[in-house]
Amino acid sequence: MTTVESQGKVVRIGVLGCGNVGAAFVRLVEQQGATIQLRTGIRLEVVSVAVRNMSRDRDVQLPEGLLTRDAHAVVADPSIDLIVEVIGGIEPARELIAAALAAGKPVVTANKELLANVGGELYAAADAAGVDLLFEAAVAGGIPVIRALRESLRGEPVSRVMGIINGTTNFILTKMSEEGADYSAALSEAQRLGFAERDPTADVEGFDAGAKAAILASIAFGAKVVAGDVYHEGISRVTAADIAVAKRLGYVIKLLGIAERDRETGEIAVRVHPAMVPNTHPLASVRESYNAVFIEGDAVGSLMFYGRGAGGNPTASAVLGDVIDAAVNLVKGTHGSIGSFAKATIRPIY
Amino acid sequence: MTTVESQGKVVRIGVLGCGNVGAAFVRLVEQQGATIQLRTGIRLEVVSVAVRNMSRDRDVQLPEGLLTRDAHAVVADPSIDLIVEVIGGIEPARELIAAALAAGKPVVTANKELLANVGGELYAAADAAGVDLLFEAAVAGGIPVIRALRESLRGEPVSRVMGIINGTTNFILTKMSEEGADYSAALSEAQRLGFAERDPTADVEGFDAGAKAAILASIAFGAKVVAGDVYHEGISRVTAADIAVAKRLGYVIKLLGIAERDRETGEIAVRVHPAMVPNTHPLASVRESYNAVFIEGDAVGSLMFYGRGAGGNPTASAVLGDVIDAAVNLVKGTHGSIGSFAKATIRPIY
Repeated sequence: MTTVESQGKVVRIGVLGCGNVGAAFVRLVEQQGATIQLRTGIRLEVVSVAVRNMSRDRDVQLPEGLLTRDAHAVVADPSIDLIVEVIGGIEPARELIAAALAAGKPVVTANKELLANVGGELYAAADAAGVDLLFEAAVAGGIPVIRALRESLRGEPVSRVMGIINGTTNFILTKMSEEGADYSAALSEAQRLGFAERDPTADVEGFDAGAKAAILASIAFGAKVVAGDVYHEGISRVTAADIAVAKRLGYVIKLLGIAERDRETGEIAVRVHPAMVPNTHPLASVRESYNAVFIEGDAVGSLMFYGRGAGGNPTASAVLGDVIDAAVNLVKGTHGSIGSFAKATIRPIY
Repeated sequence: MTTVESQGKVVRIGVLGCGNVGAAFVRLVEQQGATIQLRTGIRLEVVSVAVRNMSRDRDVQLPEGLLTRDAHAVVADPSIDLIVEVIGGIEPARELIAAALAAGKPVVTANKELLANVGGELYAAADAAGVDLLFEAAVAGGIPVIRALRESLRGEPVSRVMGIINGTTNFILTKMSEEGADYSAALSEAQRLGFAERDPTADVEGFDAGAKAAILASIAFGAKVVAGDVYHEGISRVTAADIAVAKRLGYVIKLLGIAERDRETGEIAVRVHPAMVPNTHPLASVRESYNAVFIEGDAVGSLMFYGRGAGGNPTASAVLGDVIDAAVNLVKGTHGSIGSFAKATIRPIY
């Protein structure tokens, strides 16, 4: 980073990807720059944004010359201090992040697919390089649950993490539950409103929630859990009749991602499936496309974190929180420890 | 701190006060010590516990020689690296914390009364000394909302913080709402079960919630807000009829602490009073003695943090999270910045 006498420290940021989240992040840095500088003494400057398509319309005004097609050059540029990765997918995100870490640059990523599959090697690379790898935005969008698990609960004996971590399916189940809609009508409405994709498989069959559950399990238990370890069943077979019966009994049906550790054996079980949640449970009142993560610990008891699990602005807010953290650490010449991850013994789900 | 070759770093802790929270903290350090060492490389060691009464029965087994009546000597002891203050009240907590900070020792405190009244001078002292002053446990017990505001949301334009931050009154209102009890019967039950004190004034008249609301407002808005700035009205005039009417209209009555900042003028308003909360709002389902803090930000949207707002174990869990943070920083030779606090313009509540 550069020191400018009159303005304190400047941290220069390269952003990889400029979709919803990338564009919202660039806007947010511009809007909040002065406040951030006042609170931290650091001026954040987005100096380069790598995109696939230079001519696409974007929801943000970028100064001339900021856009580039060469993501590798952004990572290699010695004048860039910190990398934000919001491309998604495994490659080229993996090699770009690995290159940034190897060059001693902190990385902030929102990439759940990447972390749920090859997080272990990236955490180790960050640790070896002594730089920050932060990823609040990868699970549950704007909800600061990763930081809570990594920092606030480092000393807490967490036994279970359980969450509504897919907004699309929660939207569909809410429609079915509150309006008596059947699955296909609720899915169509979700698609029409932009809450579900044209091919909704990743959401409705629980793949997306499974990736997030794997990341939550790794962080909560300090263990190597990957997406392939997660049993998952989606909501496509939930019927209006199931929901009506549950309601008569005082329950709502929610798609939960659940990660548990057996106190005796240390075995970890991670699964995603529709579950009957009693009306009095805090997760029952999580409606529409909202997400929430419920954590049980021996000392702290029950905790729940609730908020927007997706969307450009909420996700960009989480990215920005991490960027400020990494920038402050960079200026101080330190970094947060990601901790060690033990080999996980996964208990099979029958 | 000491470096012990085979065990990594040792951080030696002096605890001031050994009531519920202090005793639970000492137990938790003992139970979780090995896990913490595995995850951070640091061994936490409670080496001294200052108490008023040496002969009182305590809910923890303390090794011979750990107890002392001289809190000042604990703070001054050069072999002690870090101070945990769980005495409560303003003096002597204030002078003990000031002395610890001046001696370069990080301090973790659960003392809401202290911070709501003279927090500003202590934050400045910590900043000047370049050491951590952490206080997650001072607001909403085990719920990690202070860290979320201080770190995750540093770049977020927060417009409102609104919470159920007093467990006693939420317990009483829940009984009134769910069982149709009147105020005095519900208060008696709360007293019988240990949720309310014999003199319940601080809780039921909103003083306790007011102190917490002042701390939340300072941290959320980076402004000097003290307990005296908070308008407060308690629940002692809420009747069973009020609650029944609210229920018919689709609302529950909750005692809320609300801190708002006017986007245009920057004026801050902080108040505590009973409020009608719509049944569909996430705060409506916060029952019994649970707490929850609801945060609204322009980018992140709505967030809510839910959990145990009091009790030895949940509060000790929050203290331990802060202690680990401060210990890690100490070993690295760094500290978290508390940020700057501007003079607040308080908007009067009519």
